Amino acid sequence: MIPEMVFFLIDLFGSAAFALSGAMVACQKKADLFGVVFLAETTALGGGMIRDVLLGRFPPAMFTNWQDLNVALAMALVVFFAVLRHSETYYREEALVERINNLVDAVGLGMFAVTGCQVAAAAGYQANGFLVVFMGTITAVGGGLLRDIILGEIPFILTKYIYALAAIAGATSYYLLDRWGADSTLAAAVGICVTFVLRWLATRYKWNLPRPA
Amino acid sequence: MIPEMVFFLIDLFGSAAFALSGAMVACQKKADLFGVVFLAETTALGGGMIRDVLLGRFPPAMFTNWQDLNVALAMALVVFFAVLRHSETYYREEALVERINNLVDAVGLGMFAVTGCQVAAAAGYQANGFLVVFMGTITAVGGGLLRDIILGEIPFILTKYIYALAAIAGATSYYLLDRWGADSTLAAAVGICVTFVLRWLATRYKWNLPRPA
Amino acid sequence: MIPEMVFFLIDLFGSAAFALSGAMVACQKKADLFGVVFLAETTALGGGMIRDVLLGRFPPAMFTNWQDLNVALAMALVVFFAVLRHSETYYREEALVERINNLVDAVGLGMFAVTGCQVAAAAGYQANGFLVVFMGTITAVGGGLLRDIILGEIPFILTKYIYALAAIAGATSYYLLDRWGADSTLAAAVGICVTFVLRWLATRYKWNLPRPA
Repeated sequence: MIPEMVFFLIDLFGSAAFALSGAMVACQKKADLFGVVFLAETTALGGGMIRDVLLGRFPPAMFTNWQDLNVALAMALVVFFAVLRHSETYYREEALVERINNLVDAVGLGMFAVTGCQVAAAAGYQANGFLVVFMGTITAVGGGLLRDIILGEIPFILTKYIYALAAIAGATSYYLLDRWGADSTLAAAVGICVTFVLRWLATRYKWNLPRPA
Repeated sequence: MIPEMVFFLIDLFGSAAFALSGAMVACQKKADLFGVVFLAETTALGGGMIRDVLLGRFPPAMFTNWQDLNVALAMALVVFFAVLRHSETYYREEALVERINNLVDAVGLGMFAVTGCQVAAAAGYQANGFLVVFMGTITAVGGGLLRDIILGEIPFILTKYIYALAAIAGATSYYLLDRWGADSTLAAAVGICVTFVLRWLATRYKWNLPRPA
Repeated sequence: MIPEMVFFLIDLFGSAAFALSGAMVACQKKADLFGVVFLAETTALGGGMIRDVLLGRFPPAMFTNWQDLNVALAMALVVFFAVLRHSETYYREEALVERINNLVDAVGLGMFAVTGCQVAAAAGYQANGFLVVFMGTITAVGGGLLRDIILGEIPFILTKYIYALAAIAGATSYYLLDRWGADSTLAAAVGICVTFVLRWLATRYKWNLPRPA
């Protein structure tokens, strides 16, 4: 029973982290109360929704896991009213906001990369490594991708330093450790850390992949 | 048998209203004949398609309910050739076009909010109020959302006065009345009216939700 | 057994053509290595993924047909490193690149229009002509549509000369010949040629549909 509780908590924290990050992006766009809640929920739940549709799990988990929905709502309201009260400070400290956002987002990225793999494996696809890692990655990047598409922006995954690659690396670590019989809590911890550290280092040192001049 | 016919008619009128609104938006963008038909069909059928995919109903209703497809096609052709013949008047009277469009769109919004809830309840989810109201809302706003995403525009639901909220209010009214055992034709009428009146008042008096300065 | 191998090969060539076209668009946008691979795969596999989700086939074919994934990866790497080495020539010869891209894309368009119909018919919907032709068309245009939506651009299907219409014409030819009992290899060849020739003529002579002045 313990691993199940572990994945429940990771999923909850991941939702909170992504909702926080989504609400901050929405506030930067000067969205209204509805927009902030909508974009926070999209960022938090969108990746899992895409994963469930691709796996054929109906209705998607967001319609039965109330805790994710509610924690994302709570984060959206906290961010919205904090920004409403201190909007001047908020918009002046843009660089700080960006840095906090990147950090929180990297935590959510690692957590969802792991829970996404876990859901795909539990659905009976353990033997298909590509499918499992893909589902981990889309769970991690899908919410932000959907939010950026709705806002009409070039998605994070195409512009941020090593964003999707960090999720792929974390999902792959988790998948391999799990296949090799490692303790699943340990495998999850390694997957989250790999994603977080890789993403953080890439942001810190502005690592880029090659591109044509 | 009567309620079934009622929902059939509401769905048909909703499709016509959204196709009209979608075709007018397409003409404002100076789309060609194919673009006008494509965007009218997307606006009319897109919300129901998203709903059916999320509910796991395959193939989605648009592939078997020919009447929705055909009425949307007819509206698209009428709008296209009317604008082609009277393009000068059309582009001069932009404010009037916008006002008619808003009115027609609000009717479709209420109708689809109600039929979306009805489909979700019929699929066996009556007990899950969040799911039913979500499906009503996505049926109502999904087509316009998809159209705006395809056109690369910030979606209506994030910018128009009380747009998604009106659909949520209408869907919730319908759902509660239905749960409380009200006549389903009456519940549908109330749901449509709540959405329409709320949306109309919000447009008329420019009601806005709070947002950071 | 022969027709099955024929459709396998058509699908493989179509994936290669679309990956080539997607990678060239990605290089024009100065995407990095990950972006080029991601957009090539999206262009090659996205249409089939949308088709499978709408048909309720889970998991979508891209998770089990490794050959499509791999051929698209190979094309993306070839294009990326070719452009990286000869970037000056590449960006100078924009008109030539565009012309090659259009030609390769038209081949993929015809091939996927046919295989999309074939998958829909094999899934048991032979009798629903609208569904079959729609699935052929969305298989053909869906990957490019998804790529354009992700890049925040007005999609090809709304701006290029007779793009979706060419796919519709090819899918319809294939469907009708197949229904009338023609040899399926012949029907596939006709479908591909109709799409390719129509698209090529439309590009060559700049055929446009009517639109308001």
